[in-house]
Amino acid sequence: MIKVNENFLKLKSSYLFSEIAKRVKKFQEQNPNVSIIKMGIGDVTLPLPPACIKAMHCAIDEMADTSTFKGYGPEQGYLFLREKIAKFDFQKNNIDIEPDEIFISDGAKCDTGNFQELFSQTIKVAVPDPVYPVYVDTNVMAGRTGEFKNGQYKNLFYLSSTKQNNYLPDLPNQKVDLIYLCFPNNPTGATIDRNTLQKWVDFALENKALILFDAAYEAFIQEPNIPHSIFEIPNAKKVAVEFRSFSKTAGFTGTRCAFTVVPKECVAYTENGKPVSLHSLWLRRQSTKFNGVSYPVQRAAEAVYSPEGKTEVKQNITYYLNNAKLIKNTIQNLGFHCVGGENSPYIWIECKQNSWDFFDFLLEKAGIVCTPGEGFGKCGEGYIRLSAFNSKENVEEAMQRIKNIL
Amino acid sequence: MIKVNENFLKLKSSYLFSEIAKRVKKFQEQNPNVSIIKMGIGDVTLPLPPACIKAMHCAIDEMADTSTFKGYGPEQGYLFLREKIAKFDFQKNNIDIEPDEIFISDGAKCDTGNFQELFSQTIKVAVPDPVYPVYVDTNVMAGRTGEFKNGQYKNLFYLSSTKQNNYLPDLPNQKVDLIYLCFPNNPTGATIDRNTLQKWVDFALENKALILFDAAYEAFIQEPNIPHSIFEIPNAKKVAVEFRSFSKTAGFTGTRCAFTVVPKECVAYTENGKPVSLHSLWLRRQSTKFNGVSYPVQRAAEAVYSPEGKTEVKQNITYYLNNAKLIKNTIQNLGFHCVGGENSPYIWIECKQNSWDFFDFLLEKAGIVCTPGEGFGKCGEGYIRLSAFNSKENVEEAMQRIKNIL
Repeated sequence: MIKVNENFLKLKSSYLFSEIAKRVKKFQEQNPNVSIIKMGIGDVTLPLPPACIKAMHCAIDEMADTSTFKGYGPEQGYLFLREKIAKFDFQKNNIDIEPDEIFISDGAKCDTGNFQELFSQTIKVAVPDPVYPVYVDTNVMAGRTGEFKNGQYKNLFYLSSTKQNNYLPDLPNQKVDLIYLCFPNNPTGATIDRNTLQKWVDFALENKALILFDAAYEAFIQEPNIPHSIFEIPNAKKVAVEFRSFSKTAGFTGTRCAFTVVPKECVAYTENGKPVSLHSLWLRRQSTKFNGVSYPVQRAAEAVYSPEGKTEVKQNITYYLNNAKLIKNTIQNLGFHCVGGENSPYIWIECKQNSWDFFDFLLEKAGIVCTPGEGFGKCGEGYIRLSAFNSKENVEEAMQRIKNIL
Repeated sequence: MIKVNENFLKLKSSYLFSEIAKRVKKFQEQNPNVSIIKMGIGDVTLPLPPACIKAMHCAIDEMADTSTFKGYGPEQGYLFLREKIAKFDFQKNNIDIEPDEIFISDGAKCDTGNFQELFSQTIKVAVPDPVYPVYVDTNVMAGRTGEFKNGQYKNLFYLSSTKQNNYLPDLPNQKVDLIYLCFPNNPTGATIDRNTLQKWVDFALENKALILFDAAYEAFIQEPNIPHSIFEIPNAKKVAVEFRSFSKTAGFTGTRCAFTVVPKECVAYTENGKPVSLHSLWLRRQSTKFNGVSYPVQRAAEAVYSPEGKTEVKQNITYYLNNAKLIKNTIQNLGFHCVGGENSPYIWIECKQNSWDFFDFLLEKAGIVCTPGEGFGKCGEGYIRLSAFNSKENVEEAMQRIKNIL
């Protein structure tokens, strides 16, 4: 008898964004004349940078000619892209990352979801709360948790990020083996300074733990004391893996390209304490289960690092950050407490009521879609997330509507 | 302490195609003047069909404009593509598959690799021998096998495909729960007729087993008695999932698009025997760990179903099949036994010696790269695979070189 992986049955019945989509659909059907402004899911709205468009057209023309056609590429990604990343995202900032430590993929969601496959089922996993649901759900599917009860899964260690700790979780008061960190944070928009991040690296070194550092929002960082990479921290290469994405940086949410940095010196251990290279394991995982990213897409990603690409990306980031500023100012002037929005496209707002109720309130009274904090975990209850990924006009209209109802 | 998934350590040290690449690289370095003809890895050589190129250019222009820009698409794939697939690949042939039973992905390798995540660790898995290594390696990683010994992993059930059984494995003589079948077969090129496939479906129905049917080479089928889809077989929808790909059909190996059909009535069971919809589980898996295929790539795949696309794809398939015919005739005239090559781009050749030795012989004496059968499993020992994915000129040259040395 073919038996299911019953861990899947522990998952909460619906994935956050599907639930939001369902409620929005229902509302729109009942109110066809309301022009809904979606400030929920963090999806970009500006078109791809012209440099990327140009590079993609060129690459497609290559695919049209036998002499330049590209079949299977390297599973790890083309060297032309990995070299640009190593140079401009790391070496330029005096971070010693080599091209062969970089793995190109079709999304940070996939990579943060798949990376846990490399580890034993018995490890203790620490996740932020509120959390990007992928970190949790993929560990549930893998069987590392117990049942879901009172907003949390048994056996996971939750790193509470609250108003009290300024949305920077305390170090675990017990041994944990795998630690997910995300800065600038999704969903809160909070950032971490170098000294605090150093404490996490030290914790990992002391406990032979591993940090999975999600830096998908790195491009939004404006302040100089905020690290762009965990590898700015001394010795982090021994105990950290970093995930980055072109999705939010350059508008690739529908184009699909991301990368993961697995330093050669980063290890995990066998039961007997023998170190095993995570770089080798991830390479084996990727070459077995993945076939590389579409060639034209990798060429588009490469163009992000061209002089034109850099300028265009910067303009887009500035555009979104101006939206974020407007949202933050409006919300704060209405007397709400919030965080994020300065080095992040997200603003995390204390709504002083049940977050799904506030979600329904904003949808029904103002036609605005937010993301209810409860969907990100127990500590998200009482909060909502607003996203700056929208047109300036929509954000202005949304803020006007919010001022009218609050 | 962060502990590794020790199942990874059971994997044979190198993945087949990496080992081939290593040997070829070494030979080329030592013999820089030899023009190597690669007939090993099954990678297409003809450019993308013009219809696909055109569609991709259009889609990229959409990505350049705010009003037509596409961000996150549906994880299951765009409806425009799923509708075309349902209509032209299934409904046109009187197979009742609906668009919402189709899941678009970036590769059949990923899907055949990932699908096993839906099942319990305790299931008994049957794999062909010789086998596409992904079926085996992903189950090793998941912990469903013992150690590798004498060319096989403990606990796997191997479906021997040999000269004796005409490369069509016998039904298992014991209970198995998950059965991988691949027709037209990779690596042998053998095909299965409807009556024989019916026996497998009946076996699955009787034993509450599930068939994962890999039909990546379906487009090469020329003879009318060979099923293009397992869903041509009555009741197969209850016990089968089918994998297809644009890679070999339309030259998408570097462009990346594939799909998986999970019928709504297909189930697996809990320990207590309660049926669970695999469609729901796969949707949950994909929406958690995957973010959909690049929009321009999905538009390119859609163009495969346009009148121009169909004609162009057919021309490419004919081109490769003509190569296959030439290879098969040459090899048979030299007195070798072989199979495949008529409804498949692969020719499976009995070499009457160790297959890696014959690999080295062809490489060193003729500058030809084949795939040694041993890399596909114990039953592959004594065989090599030649691929018809090459230019006519290269295939002619390769056959001349082979005639000279054999």
